[in-house]
Amino acid sequence: MRILILGGDGFCGWPTALYLSQQGHEVAILDNLSRRAWDVELGSSSLTPISSPQERVEAWRRVSGKTIPLIEGDLTDYAMIHSAIEQTRPEAIVHYGEQRSAPYSMIDRQHAVFTQVNNVVGTLNTLYAMRDLAPDAHLIKLGTMGEYGTPNIAIEEGYITVEHEGRSDTLPYPKQPGSMYHLSKVHDSHNILFACRTWGLRATDLNQGVVYNVAVEETERDPALMNRFDYDEVFGTALNRFCAEAAVGHDLTVYGAGGQTRGFIDLRDTVRCIELAALHPAEPGEMRVMNQFTEQFSVLDLAERVHAVAGRMGLTTIIAHVTNPRVERERHFYMAKHTKLLDLGLRPYLLNDETIAGLLERALRYRERIDLTRILPTVTWK
Amino acid sequence: MRILILGGDGFCGWPTALYLSQQGHEVAILDNLSRRAWDVELGSSSLTPISSPQERVEAWRRVSGKTIPLIEGDLTDYAMIHSAIEQTRPEAIVHYGEQRSAPYSMIDRQHAVFTQVNNVVGTLNTLYAMRDLAPDAHLIKLGTMGEYGTPNIAIEEGYITVEHEGRSDTLPYPKQPGSMYHLSKVHDSHNILFACRTWGLRATDLNQGVVYNVAVEETERDPALMNRFDYDEVFGTALNRFCAEAAVGHDLTVYGAGGQTRGFIDLRDTVRCIELAALHPAEPGEMRVMNQFTEQFSVLDLAERVHAVAGRMGLTTIIAHVTNPRVERERHFYMAKHTKLLDLGLRPYLLNDETIAGLLERALRYRERIDLTRILPTVTWK
Repeated sequence: MRILILGGDGFCGWPTALYLSQQGHEVAILDNLSRRAWDVELGSSSLTPISSPQERVEAWRRVSGKTIPLIEGDLTDYAMIHSAIEQTRPEAIVHYGEQRSAPYSMIDRQHAVFTQVNNVVGTLNTLYAMRDLAPDAHLIKLGTMGEYGTPNIAIEEGYITVEHEGRSDTLPYPKQPGSMYHLSKVHDSHNILFACRTWGLRATDLNQGVVYNVAVEETERDPALMNRFDYDEVFGTALNRFCAEAAVGHDLTVYGAGGQTRGFIDLRDTVRCIELAALHPAEPGEMRVMNQFTEQFSVLDLAERVHAVAGRMGLTTIIAHVTNPRVERERHFYMAKHTKLLDLGLRPYLLNDETIAGLLERALRYRERIDLTRILPTVTWK
Repeated sequence: MRILILGGDGFCGWPTALYLSQQGHEVAILDNLSRRAWDVELGSSSLTPISSPQERVEAWRRVSGKTIPLIEGDLTDYAMIHSAIEQTRPEAIVHYGEQRSAPYSMIDRQHAVFTQVNNVVGTLNTLYAMRDLAPDAHLIKLGTMGEYGTPNIAIEEGYITVEHEGRSDTLPYPKQPGSMYHLSKVHDSHNILFACRTWGLRATDLNQGVVYNVAVEETERDPALMNRFDYDEVFGTALNRFCAEAAVGHDLTVYGAGGQTRGFIDLRDTVRCIELAALHPAEPGEMRVMNQFTEQFSVLDLAERVHAVAGRMGLTTIIAHVTNPRVERERHFYMAKHTKLLDLGLRPYLLNDETIAGLLERALRYRERIDLTRILPTVTWK
């Protein structure tokens, strides 16, 4: 299958590109390299040393014999995405090409406006280019479980049947996103649903949980293929950040009470979910929504898991409840459905000590690269 | 009360400014005059001759003795809205300052992107400026009934209590907007709810129905105060457009079957709703939502009403079902709640033949100004 990956140089995009290429798909990457630019802006960097995009695809050609064309361009530039689609004639477009950090979007007004404009316009441009050039292609769009917020009822996969005053309808699930970034994803979801209904496009919106782990088999085949490992307050997420903290003797920074419960997924499952979605496309006119995570954990659960595994490896850690920089419920009901990807055949990697140990070992290997000043939260929601 | 009206030169904004000024409020207008620019772009113009903004406020000073400061500026320019709020220290901010035409947003990709960026960024800037300068001011934001679409259950005012698998929660009402413009309003609603919850701002989101009529008492006090009367395919809306069509012997252009049912409101009620919202502000942290319309009609109902009144005035008209340029249901369930404004004291002007006759007379008076080529729909959703 011809697959164009928007944002294919990023934390999820790069392993997805390699995995799909390895499975025999014709993969092309489009990326504006903004993730690397944000590291420069924030003075942070991946715990693991990563190669340039050019070195990456060259290394992949060397080890696999497969070619991944690399298109450097920005989705907010319509002529660019138009020509990229013309050139690559994709059957599936995997769309990771967005600013994906909630704290980044909350730095200040400019970052909020940037995040919403960048993400919304990039997706609108993609939808218009698909309408005009590839109306039968399948858009596989990465959304986030954070779109739903933490309602007091079960979270369904995208739609909910509501009985109301003797009538019934199946409606888009109400969204209560918790940051300017998460809002941008909700905006995208509404725009995509409209494009499917109005123009007959087909799309799958994958509401992904928090991703942990950093490697898939393909990223381990050469040092130049190594994936990024974010541990900083802005781009680092719960489990991976805790492992980096444990490796350098930093407190495990649980925000507030730590009862915040979310869906989580191993990066190795992320890449498989994308392929499953691609192999089983949505129908024309359909915006299918699937919740892409495999297990629920509270943040405190995860800190305790890391604490225990680190202890067995001889690393002493303290779980510290730091002031929560976010405005969110710290204890709440949370039950989110996630059967659609299982129904398509996903057999998930559930979180185990081996995975945590692997992350700790990797963090230990590169511990000299950690900047301790980039861990504690400084970006606040208020 | 000190009230800043964003978009105060527009079709609803201008009569609102005069009405609130007449009631004794200290009104200021902020407008970038974009509505006039879009007329130039589209080669259309108001059926009624309208004065420049400067002539308007000067005429109002002359007839009422009251001053309405006029700030020319664009909400997407943060420094501008920041300084306007600093300067006027509003207790209420009435936000009409958006691109408000569904067909305009559907002209092409650029107009879609413009509409969403313009509306979303303007509102984000307003929220940030309020957070930093006027956290206790009350944002009165114009939304649209079109945010809800046409669900098969009753439309509530902003929120709906959902019982699901033995649990219950009150959630934002699911939105199914039908154009790139309506989508922009849904994006705004999500952003405003987040700002209220996160920063404690207070806001009222008024989901307004289709506005008919063009005059309020204040706009009739001097020719220079006259309000605009849009009849063209892009900015003209159902009832007003039918009256203009009847006046020049044009077919009444019903899109498709005409069973599309919507909420409608007389402009004289619009201005009163705004004052009611201002006099009864939302609580800090609250985004209150009220459905601002007074009656439901199908498009065909309205055409028949205009046909009948026009007939009695000696105007022969034909109701023509033209190909629907939109993608929408032409026959559907529609029942939308609208009690909150009535509870605050609104005593509505219900649609009567006198109002229709008034519109017909006004259209007849200016019939020489009608450009017949600007009536039939050319902008299509497909």
